[in-house]
Amino acid sequence: MPTLIAGARSGRIRDIARLISLVEDGSPVVPALMRELADTVGRASVVGITGSPGVGKSTTTAALISGMRARGQRVGVLAVDPSSPFSGGALLGDRIRMQQHATDEGVFIRSMASRGHLGGLSATTPQALRVLDAAGYDVVLIETVGVGQSEIEVAAAADTTLVLLAPGMGDSIQAAKAGILEIGDVFVVNKADRDGADSTVRELRNMVGLGSRAADAWDPPVVKTVASTGEGIDRLLAAIDGHREWLIASGQLQVRRVKRASDEVEALALAILRGRLEAGSGSARLAAAAADVAAGRIDPHSAAAALVEALAEEPPLSEDGT
Amino acid sequence: MPTLIAGARSGRIRDIARLISLVEDGSPVVPALMRELADTVGRASVVGITGSPGVGKSTTTAALISGMRARGQRVGVLAVDPSSPFSGGALLGDRIRMQQHATDEGVFIRSMASRGHLGGLSATTPQALRVLDAAGYDVVLIETVGVGQSEIEVAAAADTTLVLLAPGMGDSIQAAKAGILEIGDVFVVNKADRDGADSTVRELRNMVGLGSRAADAWDPPVVKTVASTGEGIDRLLAAIDGHREWLIASGQLQVRRVKRASDEVEALALAILRGRLEAGSGSARLAAAAADVAAGRIDPHSAAAALVEALAEEPPLSEDGT
Repeated sequence: MPTLIAGARSGRIRDIARLISLVEDGSPVVPALMRELADTVGRASVVGITGSPGVGKSTTTAALISGMRARGQRVGVLAVDPSSPFSGGALLGDRIRMQQHATDEGVFIRSMASRGHLGGLSATTPQALRVLDAAGYDVVLIETVGVGQSEIEVAAAADTTLVLLAPGMGDSIQAAKAGILEIGDVFVVNKADRDGADSTVRELRNMVGLGSRAADAWDPPVVKTVASTGEGIDRLLAAIDGHREWLIASGQLQVRRVKRASDEVEALALAILRGRLEAGSGSARLAAAAADVAAGRIDPHSAAAALVEALAEEPPLSEDGT
Repeated sequence: MPTLIAGARSGRIRDIARLISLVEDGSPVVPALMRELADTVGRASVVGITGSPGVGKSTTTAALISGMRARGQRVGVLAVDPSSPFSGGALLGDRIRMQQHATDEGVFIRSMASRGHLGGLSATTPQALRVLDAAGYDVVLIETVGVGQSEIEVAAAADTTLVLLAPGMGDSIQAAKAGILEIGDVFVVNKADRDGADSTVRELRNMVGLGSRAADAWDPPVVKTVASTGEGIDRLLAAIDGHREWLIASGQLQVRRVKRASDEVEALALAILRGRLEAGSGSARLAAAAADVAAGRIDPHSAAAALVEALAEEPPLSEDGT
């Protein structure tokens, strides 16, 4: 592994890909890997890109990559699909559209899939991010499909979240109401050459304006783009830069990163505790408790409280693979 | 609370409703309530009813209630909507269709909503079930919307799960493939007076037949109904009875109930542990760990492992409200 890590730090694509595969597979070496990478986290800007299917997320991602490469930035992309394996095909199709960047050494693109291990994508995405951070990418783009709970969790890994919409998608603004508004730092009306773009922009501006904001809070801009021609991408890059400057000046970058670290540590701690309940003496105790509850000899709350106390008295296992 | 419990045990609707509200609100008295009810669990038959919107779940539920009432059974209904508050309206509309049973003392109908407390509906549904069980309902019907992860968790609370489909809903069988097949004990093709009912039945029978089964395994029947006229409801009741007889004869009723108890105890134990991470000294330790991780002084895995050890050494709090 030291060779892999050294290779990844020097930007060797194959080694970066192998480290991310370890993360994705939930390999037992991941804790040791994260330990090695700890001192190089927090360098990359992390930009999340989300929106309903059909708004042009992949085209916009490709256009952003071009713009960032033109400024000399190295760009990593994590395309996250938290839905079932059945929809993997569509995402693969999108990846093909990004092939213009496939031979560029300064670009790393990876589709992430949940392989069902503890914590799912909300656990593996920050770990993959650490690998790309350590590999020296200046920007990491995290592209997610849709706006469900998983996407919101994944978006929480970003410093700046872009929410994409397209004109004429009747329910996109409605979907926006259901949760997108809170997570968007920059709103993008893509396919802005279509009818209805201006009314979508207006409607969005009104909705964004409705939220009560402190005087020093960030006011999310609404940017029109036609990602397929590159139109508006310069304004979008400027909006992303503007948000980053605000994050740093306001201290929010640090606040967000500590919050992210807190969520990650909590999720990992709970995964350790769940592991104790599902293996060895924990699992035997759980089975006995379940039999008692099913027979009506004890209620589930008392059984759970007793189980937690019993676990606390167990000698700790080594959960971190070392 | 003793008065409420005594009232609920004697079948007083208002007291049952108030106990379920306590459960839904995640009241601190819930553990004590569950302790009181422990010795009267496992009496009711629990029947889950699931399927996509539009297949006629509520109409079928209403028809099943009528059939069960005609046999003299008391029936409790929990209608579970794990989706956002925005879709609550549709469910309310469905409830109104059940008003034919609203004045029947032998029927209790309740919409359950997740109020965002720990464990959500997969925590509160088994608790509400215990209340109805203690109140002496012979059958508890749990009606869920759709077939997502939450629905599957809720379906796991049932002894017998009915999966409803309707003819001419192009993707219903496709949806079935994605997970419905494993959870269905009885398949119902409702609206069977519509075109295509027989081919939907045939397709379902083929798919159900594809699974490899042990010789003594349950072979899920496919029942045609027109719930709005009551047609086929007698056959559906017979299929439910048949599954129950198999559950008892095969020992699977006990196996399923122990599995349910195990899931419930595990979820509650994890909720207790999460509570320790989010309050008091646990939350201070988590905040310190997060700051260290964000600054790159430690990796998240090591921080999580240290946090778990520190928590194990804390004196236990009283989490059960006593």
